[in-house]
Amino acid sequence: MVVKAYGAAAGDKPVAPLNITRRAHGAHDVQIEILYCGICHSDLHQARGEWAGTLYPCVPGHEIVGRVAAVGGHVTSHKPGDLVGVGCVVDSCQHCAECDDGFENYCNGMIGTYNAPTPDAPGHTLGGYSQEVVVHERYVLKITHPEDQLAAVAPLLCAGITTYSPLRHWNVGPGKKVGVVGIGGLGHMGIKLAHAMGAHVVAFTTSEGKRADAKALGADEVVVSRNAKEMAAQAASLDFILNTVAAPHDLDAFLALLKRDGTMVLVGAPASPHPSPNVFNFIMRRRSLAGSMIGGIPETQEMLDFCAKHGITSEIEMIRADEIEPAYERMLKGDVKYRFVMDIATM
Amino acid sequence: MVVKAYGAAAGDKPVAPLNITRRAHGAHDVQIEILYCGICHSDLHQARGEWAGTLYPCVPGHEIVGRVAAVGGHVTSHKPGDLVGVGCVVDSCQHCAECDDGFENYCNGMIGTYNAPTPDAPGHTLGGYSQEVVVHERYVLKITHPEDQLAAVAPLLCAGITTYSPLRHWNVGPGKKVGVVGIGGLGHMGIKLAHAMGAHVVAFTTSEGKRADAKALGADEVVVSRNAKEMAAQAASLDFILNTVAAPHDLDAFLALLKRDGTMVLVGAPASPHPSPNVFNFIMRRRSLAGSMIGGIPETQEMLDFCAKHGITSEIEMIRADEIEPAYERMLKGDVKYRFVMDIATM
Repeated sequence: MVVKAYGAAAGDKPVAPLNITRRAHGAHDVQIEILYCGICHSDLHQARGEWAGTLYPCVPGHEIVGRVAAVGGHVTSHKPGDLVGVGCVVDSCQHCAECDDGFENYCNGMIGTYNAPTPDAPGHTLGGYSQEVVVHERYVLKITHPEDQLAAVAPLLCAGITTYSPLRHWNVGPGKKVGVVGIGGLGHMGIKLAHAMGAHVVAFTTSEGKRADAKALGADEVVVSRNAKEMAAQAASLDFILNTVAAPHDLDAFLALLKRDGTMVLVGAPASPHPSPNVFNFIMRRRSLAGSMIGGIPETQEMLDFCAKHGITSEIEMIRADEIEPAYERMLKGDVKYRFVMDIATM
Repeated sequence: MVVKAYGAAAGDKPVAPLNITRRAHGAHDVQIEILYCGICHSDLHQARGEWAGTLYPCVPGHEIVGRVAAVGGHVTSHKPGDLVGVGCVVDSCQHCAECDDGFENYCNGMIGTYNAPTPDAPGHTLGGYSQEVVVHERYVLKITHPEDQLAAVAPLLCAGITTYSPLRHWNVGPGKKVGVVGIGGLGHMGIKLAHAMGAHVVAFTTSEGKRADAKALGADEVVVSRNAKEMAAQAASLDFILNTVAAPHDLDAFLALLKRDGTMVLVGAPASPHPSPNVFNFIMRRRSLAGSMIGGIPETQEMLDFCAKHGITSEIEMIRADEIEPAYERMLKGDVKYRFVMDIATM
């Protein structure tokens, strides 16, 4: 079926209206009417060809929420009318150790929601800046939030799970002191989630202006990382740090804040390397530096259920489909609190 | 009491005979007649002033084994005649969280066996290149190996615990595939220990010539790390890597060999930084890079008991006290299998 979408025809072309074809749903597929789609920084990188390998036309979008329009004959877990979500993963090999363990995100054959190979036209996946999408049932999540929160649920599918997964994996909870570095699309979710998990949350920001906001999001303490005295006061005191900053920066300044056996996890990958961290910061207190990428499908469902239970959504600014390019420009300046979400009805 | 020792009078002076004064033993002290002392690469760095802050005269040595000569009135755990060891730590604050948890090695007030502040003359600690040492009972380890293995036990006090501690902490054992990078003083102990713990051990070396040796030490597989095909065959297959190489090198080549949730631990700190590792190698499989430094006193005792039970000692070459400088020169060329140990009776 042909549906309206927004995409880039080339790296130097703006994201603009185009028509795309979605496959007819197969026996295991769920056909989804997309209602809202979050705007992730990755969308901008991919659309503008800032990463190697963008395939055009490029239709970004992997924070998808909508309503089931139809299901294939073998689909049992979703039915027409259900509110559902689709995140960064729409397929995987389904038979490796990663898939068996519910970590489809780490499968070597993981198929991203856009720009990944597919037998469907045009040969690569097309994302959520579109009216409909057809996805294998395994990669479709149930949404139990109230329907009027649906737009603010969209960013949970990427920003939410990317922060929830490492917080859970490293056992963040009551009695733990947790740092969240960077208060943007990911970081603001990290603060909300770590707070809801019962941890003592210390937010780190470069901007004095975000102090009150961070508190409102659930931070118990806010540290302006340019302030050496505030940083020193946190030395060797944190159990875990969720570092959401993708720009190259001094990792040592944060590693030094970890207790013995503490871990800092990176969820963003910089285009150029971070300065090499000082090995003494690892060996002196048996600290770890780790990475984490999105999350598996079972834990994405767990995250959505956790958020519904705790009344957690993303802070969003709604935009129309024809406002994507100005939204990208504002994102580049960090001028968004904290995630743009597109109303697909404006297509 | 005045005893014979070997030490450096300055960074540009050789390690040579000198007399030093040991304190009279206090109520909690153990006075030890030193029989053998291992030669660690750190000794060379410190004696030659290659690290900032060497205090002279510098008497190195923190792989000390000997016999208890006398004990203070409050000492209950050691008695004259016992075979004992002293490693890298001779004091700590004894009241912080690290000390309470038996991680004296991570205490901010940890006092190293040489070159650390002490009220004793000359104001800094003097190590095991000497006939006697006086140490608080808490930092004295029991040795239950047969007495004829005593010289080969000495390196366990640094090389042994430095490798044992991370192997245990990261749960190396049956069913785990473990890499050991570098087959030197530390690495050869890592292979022996990981093998005795029941893991499948893959040794990584740059030299084709060490292949047979690594097998003899207990490696199930040996990979010459300059061989791209051999390296590729190990991709994403290891649960844990113990990296004993202190020289700056490409960490990515080894990070890529870890499974999901695998950890590589560094036990050496290079004088100049490693090339900055690629963040994608962390986030793609939730891998970790960590560090570990020596070990705590309780786990050092556990390591010694484990080694005695499994018949594990270090591979050593015995030297006379007047052969320290030639031994240092051979160490710089990697020409030792695998640890020099000094016979203190030759002083």
